[in-house]
Parts: sequence; C-alpha cells; structure tokens
Amino acid sequence: MIQTPNRTALLEARKKIEKYIHKTPVFQSSALNEISGAQLFFKAENMQKMGAFKMRGAMYATLQLSKEQQLKGIATHSSGNFAQAMALSAKLLKIPAWAIMPSNAPQVKKDAVASYGATIIECEPTLEARERTQEQVVNKHNCTPLHPYNAIDVILGNSTATQEFLEQTESLDIIISPVGGGGLISGTALATHYFSPTTKVIGAEPQLADDAYRSLKTGIIQPPLEPLTIADGLRTALGDITFHFIQQYVEEIKLASEAEIIDAMRLIWERMKIVVEPSSAITLAIVLKNKDFFKGKKVGLILSGGNVDMGKLPF
Amino acid sequence: MIQTPNRTALLEARKKIEKYIHKTPVFQSSALNEISGAQLFFKAENMQKMGAFKMRGAMYATLQLSKEQQLKGIATHSSGNFAQAMALSAKLLKIPAWAIMPSNAPQVKKDAVASYGATIIECEPTLEARERTQEQVVNKHNCTPLHPYNAIDVILGNSTATQEFLEQTESLDIIISPVGGGGLISGTALATHYFSPTTKVIGAEPQLADDAYRSLKTGIIQPPLEPLTIADGLRTALGDITFHFIQQYVEEIKLASEAEIIDAMRLIWERMKIVVEPSSAITLAIVLKNKDFFKGKKVGLILSGGNVDMGKLPF
Repeated sequence: MIQTPNRTALLEARKKIEKYIHKTPVFQSSALNEISGAQLFFKAENMQKMGAFKMRGAMYATLQLSKEQQLKGIATHSSGNFAQAMALSAKLLKIPAWAIMPSNAPQVKKDAVASYGATIIECEPTLEARERTQEQVVNKHNCTPLHPYNAIDVILGNSTATQEFLEQTESLDIIISPVGGGGLISGTALATHYFSPTTKVIGAEPQLADDAYRSLKTGIIQPPLEPLTIADGLRTALGDITFHFIQQYVEEIKLASEAEIIDAMRLIWERMKIVVEPSSAITLAIVLKNKDFFKGKKVGLILSGGNVDMGKLPF
Repeated sequence: MIQTPNRTALLEARKKIEKYIHKTPVFQSSALNEISGAQLFFKAENMQKMGAFKMRGAMYATLQLSKEQQLKGIATHSSGNFAQAMALSAKLLKIPAWAIMPSNAPQVKKDAVASYGATIIECEPTLEARERTQEQVVNKHNCTPLHPYNAIDVILGNSTATQEFLEQTESLDIIISPVGGGGLISGTALATHYFSPTTKVIGAEPQLADDAYRSLKTGIIQPPLEPLTIADGLRTALGDITFHFIQQYVEEIKLASEAEIIDAMRLIWERMKIVVEPSSAITLAIVLKNKDFFKGKKVGLILSGGNVDMGKLPF
C-alpha cells in the first residue's frame, strides 16, 4: 500500500531544500508561442545545480536521513544525472558518497561525479552487477543506498520544481513532464494535485521507450525497452511507487519520435538560446505534434536537464 | 566634432525602447566563479529579441525618425545581426524595410530577415556594391539608411543594455564588452560613465581582428583585417564616432586567440546551459586568460548575442 504524501509534506520538502538548490527561472518565447499556437512556459531545470532536476530529489532524500546515517554516507548505482546529484548533495553536506558506475560509462560522466568528490566504484555494465556491487558497498560502509526515482523522498524533492513553477506562472491549463522512471512526473503530479488541481498533467515519452505509455494502457508495469532513444534520461522503466502516482494523477502520456525530439531540441537551442538535453526537448515535441490539442492553452513545460555531450550533438 | 550625449539622452533612449525590447536576465555561475577566481555577472543579450543586443540600437534609431520618415521605411546593408534587428524593428512599427545582402550571405540569415517581412535586395559581395546598392534603394524609395554602429542613436539604444545591467548588479569593478564596429562598447562606456563612473570598461577583441586594439595604441583608426576570426560579429572596423568614445571612455582592449574563444564558448554552453555566439564568449575568454588581473573582482560580461548556425559548431 503506497501512501500519498500530504500537502504539508510537499511544503516541508520545499522549505528544507531551498538553501541547497537554485530556484530556476521560467522562460517564455514569443517565437515558440507563434509556432505552436499555444502560450508556453518553460521551467528551466537545465539551469539547476549540476544541470538537472535530479538535484532536488537527491538533496531531499539525503536531508531526510538521520545525522548518523548521513555521516556514514550515501550510495547509488545510477550512471546518469542522479549519480552527479547524489555526489553534489554529499559534497554540500560534507558526507561520503559512493557511485557505482558501469565500466563503459562515458568518461565525461565519471569526471563529473568525481569532481564532486564521490568515490567511483566500477562494475560490469549489467543491472545485476550494478545491484550486487551496490549491495557490497552498502554492506562494507554501512551507508544508505538512494534510489534515483522510486522513493517517496526523491519524489517529494522533485515536486519542489513544480511548486515553484506554479507560483511563477498563472493558472496553467496543462503541465507536460518527461517520463523516464517516473520520478519527475510523480512530483509534478503531486504538486499539481495540491496546488493547482485544475491543471492537467501530461507525460511525454519517446516512441522508442514507450513503456510508461503501455503500462498506463495495460495497468501493469511494462519492462524497459532496448535503450535506443536519444533521450537517454528516459530509458528507464517505472517503479511501483511512480507507477502508482502516474495511474492516479496523470491524465495521459503522449509519444514523440526521435526526429521530433531532435527538431524540438534544435528549436529550443536556436530560439530560446538555452541548452537542453533531448529528454527535456520532448515536452516541446509533444506540443508541436499535437497543435490542435494545445491550441490557445497555457502550457507549462518542464525542461528537466541540460547535460549534453557537446562533442556528440545530433545536429 | 563629435558631441557626447548627456545623461538625459541615455535615460530617454531607455524609456522609449522599453516596450519594444526584452529586459534580459543577468546570470551567475558558481562553477565559472570557481574556475575564474572572480565574481562574474553575465548580461544575457543572447536572449534579446532576434537574439542579439543589435535590436536595441536598431529600434531606437528607427524610433528617432520622424513619422514621415518612418512611413517611408528604413534600409541597411549589414549582412549580420543588424539586418535582422532592422527588419524586426520595422515589423514592430509596421513600416517597410529593405535589407541589402551580399549574394553569398548564408541562406539562414536571409531567411531570418525575410521572416520579419523585410525586402531583401541581393548584390555582389563587396563593400562597394553594398554601398552602391543601398544608395539606389534609398534614392528609389526615399527611405532612411541605418548604419549598424557608427551612429549616435544606435549607440544610445545599445547603452540601454548596460543601463539595465548596472541596476541588476551592484558596484561592478569592471565591465567587459566585445569590440567589433564599436557600437556596443560605446554604449556600454557611456552608460558606465554616467551611472557607475568607478566601473572600468574593457574591450574584448580577437587576436585575428585586433584593429581596435591597434587603433587605440596608434590613435588612428586601423582598417579591418581579413575576416578570419570565428567571432563573426567582431570582424568590422571601427567608425569615427565609436572610435571617439572608445578613446575617451574605454580603459583598454584585451585580446584572445581563436582557441581561447572556442574554449570559453564551450564552457558557457556546458556550465551555464545557454547558447552564445563566439563574439560573446570572448568576454569570458579574456577573464580566463588574465586570471590575476580579474581575481576577486566583480566583473560584468556582456553576452552580445546567441545567433549560431547549429550545423556548424566548432565542437
């Protein structure tokens, strides 16, 4: 039985992490309003510390640990943005952190994690090896493992992005949030539920990683697909907790093709002059693909992150 | 004899163009503060309408024309950002505009100008042909030619970026402005002179286009060099008016190499998640090249624009 956090829990999360994170700006673009026919508001979590919303959940989950737990440290086996978020959270609290990373992880990601002072433990690039290695690390150091998305405290931390967003805008008709493991959209949906109940929440997912879309249709969590989409943040499968909140509070999930994601990414870079990763650009792709649906609406788009390898751009 | 505009003229320019332009944000980056050892403030004119500060000068110069002149229209032979700025200014005022563009101008630039509704007149890609064609257009339509930088009204318009900047920050020790034709730095220097006289103004110029640097040393305007630098906005020579203000109000000009410009550009994209053109990134290149000089100082950097061809990035 998964308990829905109450309004106070969301407000507390916001208060508690406030001093550790950036309140990110909201941008508008008359060019993109014109192209889309909707009134668009972009929440720039690409400008969050370490370049993604993940900082919010990692920070809050760490702050929720007891002092004793904190001093023993934290660990995660995410190879993506969450490892960086965990490492930076640990750095800010001056506690130890271990990142279990597959041996084939890009050097740029290892460097980023190392730059925040976390210890990197390499393992074989399989989920099994990652989980086994994490267990070893946790047993050895008696530290606390953090799940990147399927955890209430992480979701509460993520909800703070939308709490801010709703204050920075007025009566949004719709908020679009990318869906990977479901941690961001769960936070988005909870914040919207309490603070702007008339706003609908729509998920954005790549056609090449449509497991959440199919999970919602079938009522059963679908396994992740081959990690083929360019939106590397959206390749993970849902967890039971995030699926629960999606089922309860998310209106629907819309899909976008790879070409549509890349086109939207280029539009955001060219017209808004900001750097977003494919996993963020998918929100605009969804709007442009469904113009009639969004026409004339006030639409909030969560730009989840901006960590892109500049040497490997798709344009 | 070039007359220096008074304080009131600057304030009037700001008031007059306010509703036609964006008040652009100022960004900070703890990562870049750490790397540089200085406290950096970035004025994001890359987020100005049409993607560059040029909008300010073009708009103000157009607003300063009489109603009769406005109705007859405006013309310019800039092939770069100023043609777009003129075209958009004309669109906002619903008046005609002619852009004289060399036949070899990139299609993307022609498209941008055309998208604002200006009429494009093609000519041979020489300065002579451009000037001759502009004269023909002006004679035929009785419209007013706008100079992209060597004009008091354009400089007054440009000064509004720094007027905002000085209000958005506190007691900057130094402001760094890129130097091409000198229109931006002239406006920067005038605004600083009146509203923050203790702030020093430093120009940033590519080593491959160091004509302003040598002009200041020799006291005589030096001709432009071969347009080899990647900072395409900084290839033009000074005008007599802009040189006058640079001589009077600019502390010094510092140079950066092509590699330093590209490295700084990548740093801004990666760490600040914003898209700037090489002509903007040179300001950070100057800071990183002269760390001892800027150490511990509050430094304002004007990011002049963000119009980059995404298909031709240097990384």
